[in-house]
This record gives sequence, C-alpha cells and structure tokens, in this order.
Amino acid sequence: MTEQNPQQDHGRLIVQGADRPGIVSSVSRVLTEHGANIVALDQSSSDPEGGRFFQRTVFHLPKLSMRFDELNEALRTKLGDELGLDFHLVEAKRRKRVAIFVSKADHCLLDLLWRQRRGELSMTVPMVVSNHPDLGEEVRRFEIPFFHVPVEKDSKPAAEKEQLNLLNGNVDLLVLARYMQILSGDFLEELGVPVINIHHSFLPAFMGAGPYLRAKERGVKLIGATAHYVTEDLDEGPIIEQDVIRVSHRESARDLQRKGADVERSVLARAVAWHCEDRIIRDGNTSVVF
Amino acid sequence: MTEQNPQQDHGRLIVQGADRPGIVSSVSRVLTEHGANIVALDQSSSDPEGGRFFQRTVFHLPKLSMRFDELNEALRTKLGDELGLDFHLVEAKRRKRVAIFVSKADHCLLDLLWRQRRGELSMTVPMVVSNHPDLGEEVRRFEIPFFHVPVEKDSKPAAEKEQLNLLNGNVDLLVLARYMQILSGDFLEELGVPVINIHHSFLPAFMGAGPYLRAKERGVKLIGATAHYVTEDLDEGPIIEQDVIRVSHRESARDLQRKGADVERSVLARAVAWHCEDRIIRDGNTSVVF
Amino acid sequence: MTEQNPQQDHGRLIVQGADRPGIVSSVSRVLTEHGANIVALDQSSSDPEGGRFFQRTVFHLPKLSMRFDELNEALRTKLGDELGLDFHLVEAKRRKRVAIFVSKADHCLLDLLWRQRRGELSMTVPMVVSNHPDLGEEVRRFEIPFFHVPVEKDSKPAAEKEQLNLLNGNVDLLVLARYMQILSGDFLEELGVPVINIHHSFLPAFMGAGPYLRAKERGVKLIGATAHYVTEDLDEGPIIEQDVIRVSHRESARDLQRKGADVERSVLARAVAWHCEDRIIRDGNTSVVF
Amino acid sequence: MTEQNPQQDHGRLIVQGADRPGIVSSVSRVLTEHGANIVALDQSSSDPEGGRFFQRTVFHLPKLSMRFDELNEALRTKLGDELGLDFHLVEAKRRKRVAIFVSKADHCLLDLLWRQRRGELSMTVPMVVSNHPDLGEEVRRFEIPFFHVPVEKDSKPAAEKEQLNLLNGNVDLLVLARYMQILSGDFLEELGVPVINIHHSFLPAFMGAGPYLRAKERGVKLIGATAHYVTEDLDEGPIIEQDVIRVSHRESARDLQRKGADVERSVLARAVAWHCEDRIIRDGNTSVVF
Repeated sequence: MTEQNPQQDHGRLIVQGADRPGIVSSVSRVLTEHGANIVALDQSSSDPEGGRFFQRTVFHLPKLSMRFDELNEALRTKLGDELGLDFHLVEAKRRKRVAIFVSKADHCLLDLLWRQRRGELSMTVPMVVSNHPDLGEEVRRFEIPFFHVPVEKDSKPAAEKEQLNLLNGNVDLLVLARYMQILSGDFLEELGVPVINIHHSFLPAFMGAGPYLRAKERGVKLIGATAHYVTEDLDEGPIIEQDVIRVSHRESARDLQRKGADVERSVLARAVAWHCEDRIIRDGNTSVVF
Repeated sequence: MTEQNPQQDHGRLIVQGADRPGIVSSVSRVLTEHGANIVALDQSSSDPEGGRFFQRTVFHLPKLSMRFDELNEALRTKLGDELGLDFHLVEAKRRKRVAIFVSKADHCLLDLLWRQRRGELSMTVPMVVSNHPDLGEEVRRFEIPFFHVPVEKDSKPAAEKEQLNLLNGNVDLLVLARYMQILSGDFLEELGVPVINIHHSFLPAFMGAGPYLRAKERGVKLIGATAHYVTEDLDEGPIIEQDVIRVSHRESARDLQRKGADVERSVLARAVAWHCEDRIIRDGNTSVVF
Repeated sequence: MTEQNPQQDHGRLIVQGADRPGIVSSVSRVLTEHGANIVALDQSSSDPEGGRFFQRTVFHLPKLSMRFDELNEALRTKLGDELGLDFHLVEAKRRKRVAIFVSKADHCLLDLLWRQRRGELSMTVPMVVSNHPDLGEEVRRFEIPFFHVPVEKDSKPAAEKEQLNLLNGNVDLLVLARYMQILSGDFLEELGVPVINIHHSFLPAFMGAGPYLRAKERGVKLIGATAHYVTEDLDEGPIIEQDVIRVSHRESARDLQRKGADVERSVLARAVAWHCEDRIIRDGNTSVVF
Repeated sequence: MTEQNPQQDHGRLIVQGADRPGIVSSVSRVLTEHGANIVALDQSSSDPEGGRFFQRTVFHLPKLSMRFDELNEALRTKLGDELGLDFHLVEAKRRKRVAIFVSKADHCLLDLLWRQRRGELSMTVPMVVSNHPDLGEEVRRFEIPFFHVPVEKDSKPAAEKEQLNLLNGNVDLLVLARYMQILSGDFLEELGVPVINIHHSFLPAFMGAGPYLRAKERGVKLIGATAHYVTEDLDEGPIIEQDVIRVSHRESARDLQRKGADVERSVLARAVAWHCEDRIIRDGNTSVVF
C-alpha cells in the first residue's frame, strides 16, 4: 500500500460527501477528459441510500505540475459547485512536511526518523520540538533541527505560543510521538493542520495513568496501541490504526511497557505513512483507510 | 467485506484486461447511463504502464433482473468489443451453487455447512460427495444430499466419471474440504468450474506427506494453512488466503494437527466467502482479492 | 499445550501460596519418594521476594488411582501443614463435568460440543441449560440433555433455584456460552464451582450494550473477545484468554458481529480447554496460565 | 519473558539429557541444599517414556559469585557423573558478548544496537564486522568498534581467518544480521560459539534468491521471517523464532521487502534476547524455547 517513490506526474484525488448516483462516473470523466490515466481507485459508501461517499483515486497525467491548476479548477466546477462534494487534489511528488513533538521516550521518534531516512515515508521533517532537552543530540544526527520548548504548569500558554511560532506555515502535519503534554483546544485551532497521536493502550481501554500496571493487575493477555487524530476531547479522535501483542503472566509491568513500545512505534509509523499518502479520510469521529 | 444479504437489485461487475487510459471512466459511464448507482468500487493496476487492469464494482440498479440482459449487452459492446477487456456481470442475489468434496475429516465441511446455515455465505450446497461413507449422516442433518463415490486405485477414471455426472450443470464451484484424492487434469477440464482446495500447510512449505510431524521435527514456531485454486499442478494454483497460528515445543505433532485444523477451517471459509461474493480475480498464477 | 488423551496413571498437581525457599524441592521430593516421574513442570513467582508462588506439575505414577489417597495425604502433610500452601491433586484421566448455559446464539455452544465430540476437550457435558427453547434440537443431536429454564424479570430467583437443582453435585465447571442473563451473587456462591464467561469485547472496552455498533462508530481497526472467570462484579473477573481480529471501514456493524463471533468461539474454546487441563491458577483478580 | 536487569545473585541452570524419574527432584535438592531459592522453573519432556528431558531454572543465591564454583562442582557430581545429564550454570549478571556480522542492509543491525542501548538485551557488543564499509559511521556512533573485512570470491579463506582472529576469545555469540556471505563449515567449527541467522523468509519456503519477487508472483497473503541457529547446512539449523505479516495484491515486490524488513528485525531481536537469557535449548535439529 505504499507509494514512497511516486513517479513524476502522479496525482491523488480524495473525494467525499453525500452519496448520490453518478459520482464515480463524474470524477473519472473529468480525469479522463484531461488526459489522466487512473492507476488505482478505492471507493466506498457508508450506506446504499442516504449515506456518505468516499473515494481515493491515484492517476498519471503527463506534465501534471503545469496542468495542476487547470485540473483543480475543472474539479471545483464539477465536483464542488455542481455535486456539492468536498475534494482534495495533491501531487504525489510533494512530500508532506511533518513536525514531531516528543518528550523523553525515544522509540517512536527514532523509528520515524529512521524510516524517513530509508525512504519509507513520503515526508520531510522540518523540525522536532520537545519539552525536554534529552533527545536533541540524537535528532541532530539526522540533520534535523531540534527545538527545546519547556512547558511548565504556569507557562503553558506562552509555550504553546512559542510552538505555534515555530510551526506556523512550516508544516502539513504534527505528530505526537509520545509527547506527554496535553495540547489546548486553542492550540489545535490555531495550528490548523491535522495532529496524529499514539496512545499507549488499546483504546478505549485502560485510559489514564499507569496502563501497563493496570493491565498486569487484571491479567490481560494482549496489550496494544492506538494511533488517532487529536481532537479537543483527549483520546477521543478518529482511530487510524491499532495493533496488539500477546503477553503472559511471566512478564512484569515493565516488560509489558517494553512490548508496548514495540507496538506503539509500528502502529504510529503505519498511521503516519498512510496519512502522508492521503489514504485516510476523516468522517466525523470515524475514519476510512484506503 | 461481506455482503451476505445483498438487497434486491444489486449487481457486481468484474473487469480485467490490459491496462489503458479511460477504463474506469468507460465502465462507470455505461453503468450511470443505465441508471445504476455505484455502491463500492475497487480498482488496481499491476503496473503504471503496460500492466494488467482489475476492477470490481458493486452497484444498485432498480429492476436489475429485468434489465440485466440489456446492461450485459451494453457492457459487451463497450468493454469487450471496443476496449478488448474481459468482464463478468452477476446479480448479487443469485447465490453460487457449491458442491463440497470430502473424505473423512469433518472440520472444514462442518464449518462451511454451519456458516451456510447461519447465512454467512452467499451460496447453496446442492450436494456433498465423499469417497468414504462416514460423514453421510452428519451432512444429511443439514438437509443436504450426500453421495458416496468410492475411489480405488483402479477405479479412478470410473469414479471421476460418476462424480462428473453428479456435478455437471449443477454447480458453480467445487470445494475440496480436505478431500484426499488428486483430481485428474481431464476431470478439471471437463468440470469447467473453479475448484478451491485447502492445503494443510503454509505453502510453499512442507509439501507432501506428514507435514505436521516434519514441522515438529524442525521446531517451527508457526503452522499455517493455504486456500488456493486447483490447477493440474497440484498445490501450485493461485493462492487465495493464508493464515498461521503460533505453536511451541510443548505441543506434540498431534496437537499441531489440531491447531492446524482450526486454521484450515477458517482460511477455507474466508476463501469460499470471497469467491461467492466475486471478490477474487485470477490472473495467471496469482490472484487479486478485493 | 493439550493433553486430551492423558494416558492412564498421569496426575496433575497445582500448588500456590506465599513464596519461600525450597518449595519446588519439597514438591518434587514428595513426588519422587512416591515413585512418580515428573513429565512437565511450570513454575513462576510473582516477585523474587515476598511474592506469590505458582506451580503446575504433570507426573506419571503407576497405579495412580490406587495410590491417590496416600499421595494426597503426604502432600497435605508436607505442603499444607508444614509449608502453608494450597494444593490441588487430580487424576488426568478424570474429565471435568461441564454444564453449558446458553441463550439463542449457537456459535460458542456448537463449537464446544463439536470439539468435545472430536476429543479435543478433556470434559463431559452432562447438560445444556437455556432460557430459550430454540437450541434444544441441536443439542440433543449430540446426545446431551437440554433443559429449558425460562428466566423472566420476576421469576429470576425461582429460575436460579431450578438451575441450581439441576447443577448441584453434577458439574465441576459452568460455562456461559453467550448466556444473556446475569447470575446473582447468591447463585454463584451456592453453585460453588468456577464459572467461565465469554465477553463480546476486548475487555475492558466498550462495555455494555451494542459493542459492535459503538466500535464501528469509533472506527476501530481490531475487534476482540475476552474469556474470564465470573465474579459478582460482572465482567470484572480474572481474564483467562483474549484475542482480536482485524476489521476495516468496509465492514458493517453486522459484519463486525460475525467476525466477533469467530473470535468468541475460539477464545472460549481455548479457555475451557485450559481450565479442563488445570492450566489456570487464579490469584485474586489475575490469572496464571501455564 | 525478559530479565534484562537481573538483580545481583541470580543464576540460571540449564539441564538436558535422557529422561528418567527424579531429575527435577535431584536438581532442586542440590539448589536448596546450597541455599538457593528457585524463582522460575520450566521443564518439559519430549515423551513420557524414553524421551529427552529439558529444564531451565532461575534461582536466587546470596553471594552467588563467591559460591559459583562450589555449586557448579556439586551439580557436576550429581547431574553429570551420577545422572549422566548435560548442564550449564550461568550468573545472570554476566551479559553475553555478542559480535554482529552485517553487509549493507541496516535494519536488523540498528534495531539490535538501539535495543542494547535501551537496556532491553542482556548483552554487550564488542564489535561489528562487515564485508562492506558502508555502515561504519552508523555503528561507531554507538561507540562500538567496526571492522571492515572484505570478502572476495578468491579471498574467502583469508577473510575468514581474519574474522576468526577478531572473534576468538572475545565473543559468546555471533549474530548474522543480514550478512550476505555463507560461512564455511571450518569457520563454524573453529569459532566454537553459537551463530544465529535471520532468514528473509518463512522457512522452509521460497529458499534461494529473490524470495519477495517469487512470493509476489505466487500471490502469497503473508510474508515472514525465521531466526535459526546456523549449521553447515545453510538455512537448515534449528528454528528459534518465526513471525509473519499480512500483505495484499496492492503491494509491489519492493513493498513486500520493506514489510519483510520489519518482521526480520523484530524476529531477530526476540531470538537474540532469548539466547542471551539462556531460554533456548538446542536438541538436534529442533529447539525448546522456555
């Protein structure tokens, strides 16, 4: 499902809205009329009647960059004005700019940076921001800027302002890679780009502090992690990806935490990869992953 | 991914062939022009250029039964004659007629019959055929005819002729649910419908006799099963579905066989369900599962 | 991990209590002095110091039945009186007597009965009890008595009394195979044998009604099931086994329910198998599974 | 199952040999007589009669280092001389010295080094040796010596001699982390310590070159990796650990390779962790993992 090395001249078109007959046909006609060849198409509807419509289309169009505006305009007329749909057109070669927020735990951060260096993720990382200085050296080895923005109880509004100054206009996505501070609703609103979080649990379950200890006390046989979009209601945004790993009574709460770290980093990496390839369509509090 | 209770007036269209620009658009235009609304669409190409094109479309069209021939004809003209594509149009309400061949092991057979009774599989079972009489009573409890056709070394051609007499014209799919006889190339050719087999191993691996004992001797940590279409080269047809289950040194070869039986029945059930919903497109020795 | 066909003369010894030096040695010495050969031994401690001690031992002792009382007495003296430990000695050939409570859903029930017939479970099923008559015919085909005990809001105490009359003295374990009534604390106390329940969810998560619909609305990517011992606090007893299955946006809440049924039946079957082989040691609200 | 931070004064005792009555009792008596408290014990036998006996015991003994030789001697007398068993006594605090051989692929190497730095693996890494210079800088960042020993077709004996000079006396385990050269039987014999390899496939399957392309052509639905001990028969040694990951027709052979890399690194990390904790007992061509 990855298209990390998109050839030149490939585009992605995401469409969603109220379902009605003829949408697929309209979309493909506009693309075909502009000389595009559809390479992959996923479509689904939430209900046969009166439901929501979702479509992701990958196409090839020679000289896409030069013809992007023209195609975008044609889509706006047909899909937006005429059919009342939301759509989103992107050039596949344009990688997402992803900022990473982190605290002290390094496993999710390093996994993302390592995959990015390997070319597995269609993204650039313009900066890593942390409320602790600990991971600065590690980040800068990847030739990525690291900014230390301390967050104290009283200084949170000031810290968020400093973070926003760093981020504004520079990023398309913010990833919380085990960032242990809660972002305010104002911050999210002013930021204006999606935020992905990795939750140290198989949501909804064992929310709150000490999840591994509580899992141990209950004798759970699987532990998991959940990547989700952040909304004002903490841990309540649309789920992107989840996974679990088997555990037994032989393992201490600390062992569970370590196994959990392995699940966390792979779940977060998949969620970020999919977002950067425009595979995820948010629909209220749920998500469609194509 | 299941549509076991397809509403009236739903159809499925499967298209495959050499990829070229405009196929998705042509398909959806024909459907839209006939008043159909596309409910779900999956499409992929094996390569951006010069590859193979695959598409599965589910649509809703009022009075589909009455308009089936007309739509089929329009598709033949546009997709077949003009674009040189293979296509396959089916009414979702028409369940596949599935014969099951079995020997003495009951786990795959009973799981299929039980799921069919629950309404999980879009199929009818006109007959079960076995080279042993053992499972007759069990099958007839489901009010399904059971035929005992013994197969001895010398009588194989005669037995296959008897089997063909039972099957010809009566079935759309043959499922080998742990049937321990090899079907001849002549049989497969004369039968003329697809055949699905469940292989007691994670193919390609430990082929031949005694797979669980050999797996045990090697200390494998996972055992699996593979559902595939049958071709003349035994165990070499396109793979439909595979799964595995974890095992340890504590388990005997017999325990492995039992765990293997659990994997076999669930893998076979998924493969049959997907085939009956026209989700699988064969392409040479590989398969696309939408 | 299964010992479904225990040879004659095999026994199992379960020991638990406050940890202290020398327990393993004491246990094995008693066994050895009585001529037993240890076939398998699992032991663990919850902490290096001041923790809980757990041990499961399988041994072979010629003429075990005749020497059972003598061995039991020696263990009581050494482990009980001297070391203050709880222990439990069983003959492996003595299968557990398991009653099954069921309502209308058949998937967990049939899977247990079918596995029992195949010889996969070291148990007998003296009766199936239901608050609905629907599954009677199905159960009696397995030559197992079926009792219909209706439970109305007002008649619950009377119904529980009738159930207890059926169960008392006849069973070693009660399995709730999707039984949709809550058992009272009085019932559990008077019954006096363990009760295993299968919960239609990956606990603790989506507790209460409509779990699959709520999972769908949140866009979860995995659904699961949990087998646990029943305590007065519903759904809060020690967890025995859990598993999950991957789902996607393509699946309706009804599809999720079907996939959930597959997980439920396999998780419950494993939990019952392990209990019948004395593999599970309860310790407060957690469990050790050897 | 991890004991990465073994407290002072913990030991591990591995015992294997022909099964006979009383071994567990003898082992635990020797330990108890020397003042040791058994913390965890796993034991199994390959057959009730005439089989092989395996036991792993973790114990706590104050001032273990000072009393190690005395205990070892007592075990030799009782287990070795008297009962004819093989045994292996280690101090848990003594970490294994692990050399890593690597070629150009970095995923398995970096994962091991990163886990070692986190304290997840009970090992030190005295050196990394490669037939290519590419990964030198990366390794030295972890403050680990990197040696470049080129291996050409003609120079293999000389190269192996150079490798042996580096390794001899300095390591307890050699890990092949995607090392693309075949080690000679002479090398293995002269090295005299175990060698663990990660195989880019779910063995035995798709052996030889281009496994991911061949898997793609066959339409496999799962790809896997296998960690095993190296013997002279390449890819035929005892299997330690295996795992798989689900793939679909949407993924290219290159995507499969990337997903395979994720499985490889986690499977290898588990195998190395278990070896370093003395959890694996080799028995001919199979293995027992406690």
